[in-house]
Amino acid sequence: MNVTIRGRTQHFRTVTFDRARNSVLLIEQRLLPHEFKIVAAENFQETARAITDMVVRGAGAIGATAAYGLAQGALAFRGGDLKRFSRHVEAVYRTLADARPTAVDPVNAMNDVRREMARGGTVAEQQSLALAAAEEFANEDVRHCEAIGRHGAKLIRSGMKILTHCNAGWLAFVDIGSATAPMYAAQAQGKKFHVFCDETRPRSQGATLTAWELAQQKISHQIIADNAAGHLMQRGEIDMVIVGSDRTLGRTGEVTNKIGTYTKAVLATRHKIPFYVAIPLSTIDWNLKRGFDIPIEDRHESEVLGAWGVQERLKAKGQKLKDGKRVYIRVANPTSGARNPGFDVTPPELITGIITPAGIFKPKELWKQRHKLGFQQ
Amino acid sequence: MNVTIRGRTQHFRTVTFDRARNSVLLIEQRLLPHEFKIVAAENFQETARAITDMVVRGAGAIGATAAYGLAQGALAFRGGDLKRFSRHVEAVYRTLADARPTAVDPVNAMNDVRREMARGGTVAEQQSLALAAAEEFANEDVRHCEAIGRHGAKLIRSGMKILTHCNAGWLAFVDIGSATAPMYAAQAQGKKFHVFCDETRPRSQGATLTAWELAQQKISHQIIADNAAGHLMQRGEIDMVIVGSDRTLGRTGEVTNKIGTYTKAVLATRHKIPFYVAIPLSTIDWNLKRGFDIPIEDRHESEVLGAWGVQERLKAKGQKLKDGKRVYIRVANPTSGARNPGFDVTPPELITGIITPAGIFKPKELWKQRHKLGFQQ
Repeated sequence: MNVTIRGRTQHFRTVTFDRARNSVLLIEQRLLPHEFKIVAAENFQETARAITDMVVRGAGAIGATAAYGLAQGALAFRGGDLKRFSRHVEAVYRTLADARPTAVDPVNAMNDVRREMARGGTVAEQQSLALAAAEEFANEDVRHCEAIGRHGAKLIRSGMKILTHCNAGWLAFVDIGSATAPMYAAQAQGKKFHVFCDETRPRSQGATLTAWELAQQKISHQIIADNAAGHLMQRGEIDMVIVGSDRTLGRTGEVTNKIGTYTKAVLATRHKIPFYVAIPLSTIDWNLKRGFDIPIEDRHESEVLGAWGVQERLKAKGQKLKDGKRVYIRVANPTSGARNPGFDVTPPELITGIITPAGIFKPKELWKQRHKLGFQQ
Repeated sequence: MNVTIRGRTQHFRTVTFDRARNSVLLIEQRLLPHEFKIVAAENFQETARAITDMVVRGAGAIGATAAYGLAQGALAFRGGDLKRFSRHVEAVYRTLADARPTAVDPVNAMNDVRREMARGGTVAEQQSLALAAAEEFANEDVRHCEAIGRHGAKLIRSGMKILTHCNAGWLAFVDIGSATAPMYAAQAQGKKFHVFCDETRPRSQGATLTAWELAQQKISHQIIADNAAGHLMQRGEIDMVIVGSDRTLGRTGEVTNKIGTYTKAVLATRHKIPFYVAIPLSTIDWNLKRGFDIPIEDRHESEVLGAWGVQERLKAKGQKLKDGKRVYIRVANPTSGARNPGFDVTPPELITGIITPAGIFKPKELWKQRHKLGFQQ
């Protein structure tokens, strides 16, 4: 999507590949929203480290990064010995797969790339097929997000107020995003609407990443405390909710997403406000049979006990920030601990529809429509 | 309640009076939870400033502070001219009433004191009646909170997990608190239970004040992000909710409290978890006829866009903090704004019971029981 730097607007993807330098180029997401910077991972080890250190995060984005990383590693190989090359590629694959051991996207993406590579008979052929496959993975991610946007934009009318939670924006994908895709598509159709971004404690991805995206894209928006959505719904100030999902159960229609999503679904149901979940096909889990079986990661308590930000004196909105180092402050009582579940599960009866690249479905229809939705036996 | 300083445990009230120095002694609440300090307001102007600057906050606490401030001002008068004395007291009253113009508690408390003073025939008599009335106001606040605790403690069984929101603890009153009163009483009865404190963004009173109180009182507790309660309820980890209230409508049973309270009531209702509101009689509004008419203050957006805390490197829990200045950090995207409603209104059908000094009532019973609850025509 667009980013404006010193008055100049340019289009960026979250992850791209520089063929000449055999480098993976990434938006350094840990500096956002306070600083926009592209960093180059110059070899596959650096690419793996960028995944581990969360320079890049989000299902689609780390999938594409790993795919490019595998191609990058393959391209770095010198010589023509196919056997040695295969061993080298295997080592690259392992390094990238281990970068975020619980994530499935890097592995799925790299398996795509390896399948394509196998069609080549020489090292050079396999190298070139690897890069083509990685590019195709990234482009497909973008096409899927575009399709989510096409379907979802039909739900948005001018004048609407839309609530979103966390960041399921283009920064989490190669471009466009999932929950944000309908907004960007509706904007392109000339529709005017307002977005409330839940700040999304404890990591504040709504206040930092989603708000930054919407500001760059010039979409009218405000950040709210996670506590405020219920009150705004009561007063008729929210017309629709769109969120993303980390894992959606194809068999039950249950949706796992950032902690707090379930609460917003309960509130939306009480107020008869449509609640939509926008997802790429890769996040559908066709195996699990019960949402209760989804492991909910308990994250470090420091996230709840404090906050990260830039220290500055309060100044007029919109003024340029001095380059500030992000610092951690302890907000909470120093002798208290915290409980920090990272995700929650929203049951299908609270969800109006699931927006996918293949269309919008009721959560309970996913299984019936599984062949259209990429289910593989 | 108890505070432990350098290993020594002492009992403190939020506000007390030092007769010898004619000073109002206050816990400097703006330094909590990072530092515990008693400050002396040495004249009524300083007492008014402490109310304005939020050294002291909370309905009961600022009521008692204003009552003591009026007595302090009266006691500072030299001479025997009753007419001049009355003019002086009137000026003191105005100064203290203007310290927080929207709060009703200081005015109600000072009216009590003035009524008592009127019984005296000389300056000296009126001075002494003023101090006695202020002391009585503070003691009555404590007795009311004790009564809330007595009634509410019956609801708490050992092993329970209790959720609370914001700070309706002893720091908001002279002692004991409202929402915390049942917890302190149950603890005194030997019951063991666990409290989840909503951090309560944007001002984080749960993470700072409530968690500090519970830690001092050695009650098992954890801070959670406001987003986490729904998930914990889903997993059966919350047995009861107790919150306070800034204003409860006696005619309808609607409860105004810190933003986010309504959301917790909606969640509790869905999960059939009892939801209680603990209130002193002074917060019942017998006039308003509809919760929708309660003005909801939109507070400054900087509260949502950042956080206050102490800058420090992450260190082992429980270790003594270096005296750190509290700093403000900007968390959110620097070019985004925020919407910041301070309170919300919870309708009576979501409330299991209202715990008052006079007993526990269904919200709809308040009006029927109004004579027991201090209603005055």
